[in-house]
Amino acid sequence: MSMSVVGSVFYRKALLEDVVPFWLRNGLDKSHGGFITALDRDGSVLDTDKSVWFQGRGGWMFATLYNTVDAREEWLAAAISCGDFLRTHCFAPDGKMYFSVTREGLPLRMRRYAFSESFAAIAFAAIARAAGDEAAKDDALRCFRAFIHYSFTPGATPAKYEPTRPAKGIGPLMIGIVTAQELRENLGDVVVNGRSCTEWIDGFIAEIRQDFFKEDLAVLMETVAPDGSIIDHLEGRTLNPGHAIECAWFILHEAKQRGDAALTQLGCQILDAMWARGWDQECGGLFYFRDLYGKPVQEYWQDMKFWWPHCEAIIATALAWKMTAEARYAAWHQQVHDWSFQHFSDPVHGEWYGYLHRDGRVSQPAKGNLFKGPFHLPRMLWYCDRLLGGVDA
Amino acid sequence: MSMSVVGSVFYRKALLEDVVPFWLRNGLDKSHGGFITALDRDGSVLDTDKSVWFQGRGGWMFATLYNTVDAREEWLAAAISCGDFLRTHCFAPDGKMYFSVTREGLPLRMRRYAFSESFAAIAFAAIARAAGDEAAKDDALRCFRAFIHYSFTPGATPAKYEPTRPAKGIGPLMIGIVTAQELRENLGDVVVNGRSCTEWIDGFIAEIRQDFFKEDLAVLMETVAPDGSIIDHLEGRTLNPGHAIECAWFILHEAKQRGDAALTQLGCQILDAMWARGWDQECGGLFYFRDLYGKPVQEYWQDMKFWWPHCEAIIATALAWKMTAEARYAAWHQQVHDWSFQHFSDPVHGEWYGYLHRDGRVSQPAKGNLFKGPFHLPRMLWYCDRLLGGVDA
Repeated sequence: MSMSVVGSVFYRKALLEDVVPFWLRNGLDKSHGGFITALDRDGSVLDTDKSVWFQGRGGWMFATLYNTVDAREEWLAAAISCGDFLRTHCFAPDGKMYFSVTREGLPLRMRRYAFSESFAAIAFAAIARAAGDEAAKDDALRCFRAFIHYSFTPGATPAKYEPTRPAKGIGPLMIGIVTAQELRENLGDVVVNGRSCTEWIDGFIAEIRQDFFKEDLAVLMETVAPDGSIIDHLEGRTLNPGHAIECAWFILHEAKQRGDAALTQLGCQILDAMWARGWDQECGGLFYFRDLYGKPVQEYWQDMKFWWPHCEAIIATALAWKMTAEARYAAWHQQVHDWSFQHFSDPVHGEWYGYLHRDGRVSQPAKGNLFKGPFHLPRMLWYCDRLLGGVDA
Repeated sequence: MSMSVVGSVFYRKALLEDVVPFWLRNGLDKSHGGFITALDRDGSVLDTDKSVWFQGRGGWMFATLYNTVDAREEWLAAAISCGDFLRTHCFAPDGKMYFSVTREGLPLRMRRYAFSESFAAIAFAAIARAAGDEAAKDDALRCFRAFIHYSFTPGATPAKYEPTRPAKGIGPLMIGIVTAQELRENLGDVVVNGRSCTEWIDGFIAEIRQDFFKEDLAVLMETVAPDGSIIDHLEGRTLNPGHAIECAWFILHEAKQRGDAALTQLGCQILDAMWARGWDQECGGLFYFRDLYGKPVQEYWQDMKFWWPHCEAIIATALAWKMTAEARYAAWHQQVHDWSFQHFSDPVHGEWYGYLHRDGRVSQPAKGNLFKGPFHLPRMLWYCDRLLGGVDA
């Protein structure tokens, strides 16, 4: 099967003529720095509050475009604006990073988890390379250390649950992989807490393989007991196919970098398993949550179609196809690409809607909020452009 | 317009022949006490974990049925089972109540807010009356005091947000009204912290009227600044029409008890305003969230149709009609009744589905979870039976 219909040119055009201009025009905050992401369908501002995640994610995206696509000054300036906003406004007195702040940078919310730190780390690493900024390298390493500390040190953050039923999630492990990959890409294989980025990645993947991937059940779990056993309760059974497929491509990306057949196999096994569980045979698109045993899921939005799992699946299927040449991956890529661009993209105002009903109709038309901004969609377009254009992404 | 189609007999039959037997048969935990609420479409258990809210809500419902409908021993036994489970397993060492526990009663999760306490208070009050249990009266008063303490004392619970933008929600005030109403109903107008239940209700309603109800905008706000001003950000603009309509009927119930025309007017104004904002003209049913200015709402499930707002609207419209004899309330009652029973009820296995897509199709078919159990639906059936049957509900 040919991939020609959705080749590199398509992705690059969408990236450079639609999505990147949308965020620079509507989201970049020329008064206070960083990005405002709560934008309505036409790009007008719905809320000026800022997501700390998106100062990191946006900073990473624009520095990476500068580093890898074209040395445009406005991209570098946007990235530096995010980095400066992060440094000035997003760290609490104790060094942990906030989750949201006002437009001016006053703190609004601190959360338990440390994904603000991981996204700041990749922003600073890419900015360090783009701007030749040594201080940004130090900031990247400091943020990655903080992410590791808060994510993996028992007791480092307030417990969400009582000790009765200990559990661990896949999130910090998979974000750990991509964070270490980005540090290595931009800073070299630096050593953090006595381990190189590559060693950190090895550790994260080993734990995912051992405790979260269940070959006999054909599933990548989202939550397990500390020893990897299944927690047979609503939350323990809840699967997130898009998240798992994102994890699959992080592993495939690593496999490609290393030429590692065993890692390729693992990534493809996860993709196969979670595509089978996640793809909606009736309406198309990927379900948000599924139950391990096919039972009802408690989360209200469980059958909605969100933009980001589709971005991750477009990357994962393209990568699996390029690495294995197996026809089913080309077919899946075409399938998820077509469904996504048919349903999420907005031909009138550009960018993508974020939230569709199960049947593909738009649930609400905003282009961004605290969880959607210049990241998943442009990252997918950038990655697929490079991958299918033959550049080593 | 006649209310005859959906009169008292209809509600009583649904209550006594469908909903009450469904929960006694499938949810009551004969081994460990209390209710399991995570039940699949056919009543089979999806998860044995127990909601502390529903031990209180279920205890209240069954004691209230015993007190007001029929002195059936199995209803009293179910209520007492909930009360005993609450006493034995649901209080943390510091006296605050958990949010969820295992089937056996081991603690799973503590949350900031104190609605476990309010629901335990109404359970113990109704059990005190049903069983002539003086200790349960003390438990009710203790739980109400705890609810007041954690809900209204600055600093009593960990802050969710930084102090940058203080806010308050309507939830504790409206739950305060119904909790004090239930204590008064079952224990008499007892004094708690120096105020009678009636005085507590006066205070809660006064704050709602002053700070949350905006007559010029025709809205009951869900969240405002401490001085009642509007917070013009996504969360501050988010309205919950079902919640507001529930608040309307708590106020109408109080107005009816007192024969208070000003309270009747307030309740009807809130109902009018939030019906206009909440009713989906295109698909029918009540939206879950709306934006104050009609902008997109951030919460993913914003346009879904949940069972409980429809229960509240069925009560509110019936009460407004009975109190004012205005034809529009009869029409709205018929409208929300018809839509709800057409879309939520399950003719095969009984009870109601909880979660529908905007267009009324079932999103997931479970009959209960941590948030849905023997409360909103049986309370609505019970209340409407008494109201339309002429009993002073």
